[in-house]
Amino acid sequence: MSAKAAPFKLSSIDPSAKPFSSGDKLADKAAVETLATELDQLQDLFYADRRFKMLVVLQGTDTSGKDGTIRGVFGKMSALGVHTVSWKAPSREELAHDYLWRIHQRVPASGDIVIFNRSHYEDVLVPAVNGWIKPEQVRQRYAQINDFERLLSENGTVILKFLLHISKDEQRERLQARIDDPTKHWKFESGDIEVRKQWDAYQKAYAAAVAATGTEWAPWTVVPADSKTHRNLMVATVVKRTFESLKLRYPPGDPALAKLKIE
Amino acid sequence: MSAKAAPFKLSSIDPSAKPFSSGDKLADKAAVETLATELDQLQDLFYADRRFKMLVVLQGTDTSGKDGTIRGVFGKMSALGVHTVSWKAPSREELAHDYLWRIHQRVPASGDIVIFNRSHYEDVLVPAVNGWIKPEQVRQRYAQINDFERLLSENGTVILKFLLHISKDEQRERLQARIDDPTKHWKFESGDIEVRKQWDAYQKAYAAAVAATGTEWAPWTVVPADSKTHRNLMVATVVKRTFESLKLRYPPGDPALAKLKIE
Repeated sequence: MSAKAAPFKLSSIDPSAKPFSSGDKLADKAAVETLATELDQLQDLFYADRRFKMLVVLQGTDTSGKDGTIRGVFGKMSALGVHTVSWKAPSREELAHDYLWRIHQRVPASGDIVIFNRSHYEDVLVPAVNGWIKPEQVRQRYAQINDFERLLSENGTVILKFLLHISKDEQRERLQARIDDPTKHWKFESGDIEVRKQWDAYQKAYAAAVAATGTEWAPWTVVPADSKTHRNLMVATVVKRTFESLKLRYPPGDPALAKLKIE
Repeated sequence: MSAKAAPFKLSSIDPSAKPFSSGDKLADKAAVETLATELDQLQDLFYADRRFKMLVVLQGTDTSGKDGTIRGVFGKMSALGVHTVSWKAPSREELAHDYLWRIHQRVPASGDIVIFNRSHYEDVLVPAVNGWIKPEQVRQRYAQINDFERLLSENGTVILKFLLHISKDEQRERLQARIDDPTKHWKFESGDIEVRKQWDAYQKAYAAAVAATGTEWAPWTVVPADSKTHRNLMVATVVKRTFESLKLRYPPGDPALAKLKIE
């Protein structure tokens, strides 16, 4: 599939690039802090406005920084109106339905922001890489996902999809750190080693996913993520620009309230 | 919309026609009884087989016989694996999501049959007739519904959609009966009178729905339903034929079990 449908190659993007950086690491860190505070204020307004829903999809290999992005970019936002869903292997009941059944249940309501830590893309990536589904089914699922995301978009959902892109060397360092530091053991799973052996296949599968499902209504942003600071800076900037493009506003005041005196 | 997208007119189908009748009412009633018993047995097999899911959509104006169809056709089936969902006006939480959000949650799991008494079609019919959404949105919603039903179909769901088609005279008699018989008062709502005034608009909207969403993967059957016996006979026959087309079977036996002795 990737050869025909995805001329796009992930290897064309340098994971250590820093296109959003000022060149000064301390300044970048300060910028992330400022952005996270601004995003918190914008989310308050988004919640009050209620005309939109926002779905943020975070994908990326193990150690690519999905948790860190949630903490660094969305961490100052209020739990009022912001939810994270971390997707794991489906339950028996979930497997008895189409793979978008459990996903659809957790999409944001009006005024809410939902962050998917992994997502419905795992339901294509994992079986595709392991050969559990045929290329024809991969194509079918990406068509289904495009239809599903179009439904959400046409019903007021702003969809932002981020692929956190790290190098194989960077992953080795981060996995090793999880092994060497007992306080990081909880993040390590022996399965991660097996998945690392499929590195090239996953890189191809990610590229195919981005090529097949990068749509006008649900675009992908590939984020060079070897630098955690740059990763957060880039994601936060894209989210902020998206908020700004929505022309958020408090709902019009109620003239009747102007005369109201609380006794 | 109906003029362009729906050359199909409901008025071309006589609500008092009985294409599935033997011509003998008593024989037809007996046939419905027999069919309902067969459907009960087929559903047992469908439940054991578990390769498929079945979604039955019942649409039709007030008094068209949706409840009666569920009782007469599906009434002998076991509650194990068969569920009815009666859709009412959406709640506040449901309205905060796309209109297919609540629908998707209730679609059948593998081996299950779910009967929708009214459905997602109401989310187009009612606002379209009342002018709450524009023709462009009507088209958009039918495209979304086709995509959604294709997703279900491609993931193993057999979809059967029945439009119960009665005449305006027949509805007058049935509504009057609900008023005249105190044991039927619970089925009468004063809103039904208002909806009856929009009869022609609803007939057009139903025809447009059938034309726009009668797909290979989720076909409509328009059921002449002035005769309750004929209505049940026709629906039961279509459901039975569908079961038969699936070549249902018990899952292959486990050879290990052949040797097993319970002590």
